[in-house]
Amino acid sequence: MNNILSFFQESSERVEHFLDKKFVNSSIYTVKLTEGMRYSLFAGGKRLRPALVYASYGIFSDDYDYVTPFAAAIEVIHTYSLIHDDLPAMDNDDMRRGKPSNHIAFGEAEAILAGDALLTKAFEIMSDYTVSPNIPDNIRVNAVYKLALAAGDLGMVGGQYADIAAEGRKATSELVEFIHKNKTAALIECAVYLGGIAGGADDKQIEQLISFGRYAGLAFQVIDDILDITSSSETLGKNIQKDINSHKATYPAVYSLEGAKNKAEQYIDKACKSLESFGDKADTLLSIAEFIMERKS
Amino acid sequence: MNNILSFFQESSERVEHFLDKKFVNSSIYTVKLTEGMRYSLFAGGKRLRPALVYASYGIFSDDYDYVTPFAAAIEVIHTYSLIHDDLPAMDNDDMRRGKPSNHIAFGEAEAILAGDALLTKAFEIMSDYTVSPNIPDNIRVNAVYKLALAAGDLGMVGGQYADIAAEGRKATSELVEFIHKNKTAALIECAVYLGGIAGGADDKQIEQLISFGRYAGLAFQVIDDILDITSSSETLGKNIQKDINSHKATYPAVYSLEGAKNKAEQYIDKACKSLESFGDKADTLLSIAEFIMERKS
Repeated sequence: MNNILSFFQESSERVEHFLDKKFVNSSIYTVKLTEGMRYSLFAGGKRLRPALVYASYGIFSDDYDYVTPFAAAIEVIHTYSLIHDDLPAMDNDDMRRGKPSNHIAFGEAEAILAGDALLTKAFEIMSDYTVSPNIPDNIRVNAVYKLALAAGDLGMVGGQYADIAAEGRKATSELVEFIHKNKTAALIECAVYLGGIAGGADDKQIEQLISFGRYAGLAFQVIDDILDITSSSETLGKNIQKDINSHKATYPAVYSLEGAKNKAEQYIDKACKSLESFGDKADTLLSIAEFIMERKS
Repeated sequence: MNNILSFFQESSERVEHFLDKKFVNSSIYTVKLTEGMRYSLFAGGKRLRPALVYASYGIFSDDYDYVTPFAAAIEVIHTYSLIHDDLPAMDNDDMRRGKPSNHIAFGEAEAILAGDALLTKAFEIMSDYTVSPNIPDNIRVNAVYKLALAAGDLGMVGGQYADIAAEGRKATSELVEFIHKNKTAALIECAVYLGGIAGGADDKQIEQLISFGRYAGLAFQVIDDILDITSSSETLGKNIQKDINSHKATYPAVYSLEGAKNKAEQYIDKACKSLESFGDKADTLLSIAEFIMERKS
């Protein structure tokens, strides 16, 4: 476990160094916009998605800097999604990672625009020759396409939409699966995919990586749902039991707490099995899967 | 003028045919999300930005279908920006193009998500081999990069941010110029740029096209500000005199109505001069500049 924590630490440092240079103010008229974006970007998340990009890429190469723009772009997308999810019209969360949410700290219009700017920035970063001159164009186009699919109406936004539409209604297992596959797993799957194509994975390997990402992503969300019930506000850094109070479609609501734990274990097993052919080259990804299963916050 | 209206008509048809096929529902859980996106996409705008992509591309080739994905992507970005701008926390407009705004028709959370999904979709479209197999990867990456720059914190979102931050404060000419250069002109400039690089313009030609786009975009916004004062609600299809009532930073507020008209004429002159070396190949772009100057809605 110590090894994986130091891998997370190194991944964070690489990505944060990159983001720190990329998000600088350019005009006296947008000082607070940049500040708002940085507020949420540097709020101290786990950087799980960048770590997954690096771990997947690490199967093929240890030249980690090469893939940092992809790792950073996906974290930027994740950050935008948290800002918009917290908005009053959406989940109406006033705390995030132990601090006031972006719209509490900066205002609602400002938070909407910070989110819009972050989402757009992710695609700027992916396509910017100056920050990644060596990534071939075909890989870059492929990466932009898959990130857009994972983040948009056929992925994350679609999942968030279904989540909001389901509030207060009885959740079925199909609906919960749809929400979490799209809202959470799509971007996690994409992180593993981006590491793979940047590393030069062949079609068969890409398929195995995607399978790992999807199941690890689903497990991540089941554990998230469970922690919302069992964890304390301080540990989690956000308001808890919100899901229950707003009758969200969650795994525990459909399968009970015990059933949800079993479900998470099954997902993690499937994720790990997907990587068998990589042997010990996949150790870091496997450790991240273990981390997802055992995390407490 | 008749010629340019039929050019607009043909541009609209090409783009709408493309968008109609691209925006189809994929799941029973996101029916209303797709509906919300289509509601604003097909609200009957002028399709000025696609027309500019086609007119710029038309300098080099008449194979217009080739560049349709770029024309569509920029219209999709424009549409998302209107949905988010109209939100209660932003400009709080309940009418758009003679119909209830997206958040009035679908709800606020739904409008935020429809906007997010549209913004993401633009980049999916730009990088999708299946809809544009013949665009070379380097053009595609370049196009994604420039569109992201034009739409994000260094462009449109930055301009909208400065616009909101300036409300109720005395506007200077520098501030008004910053807002309109970024909020409006950046995307119009990008439309002309995208047509140019798709058509194979050289560096010098790209520079001239960008100059045209920037000045035409600034003129467009000055006329918009003027129409907000002089036009009727019915003609414009949205609430008028909102800018004055909310003390927006506009050209008439800084230069007076007459001064603003002169400013628009100067911008249009500069725009047209930028294209001199293209000769009559630039006639369509010049006619669009004239249309921008003379439009009544």
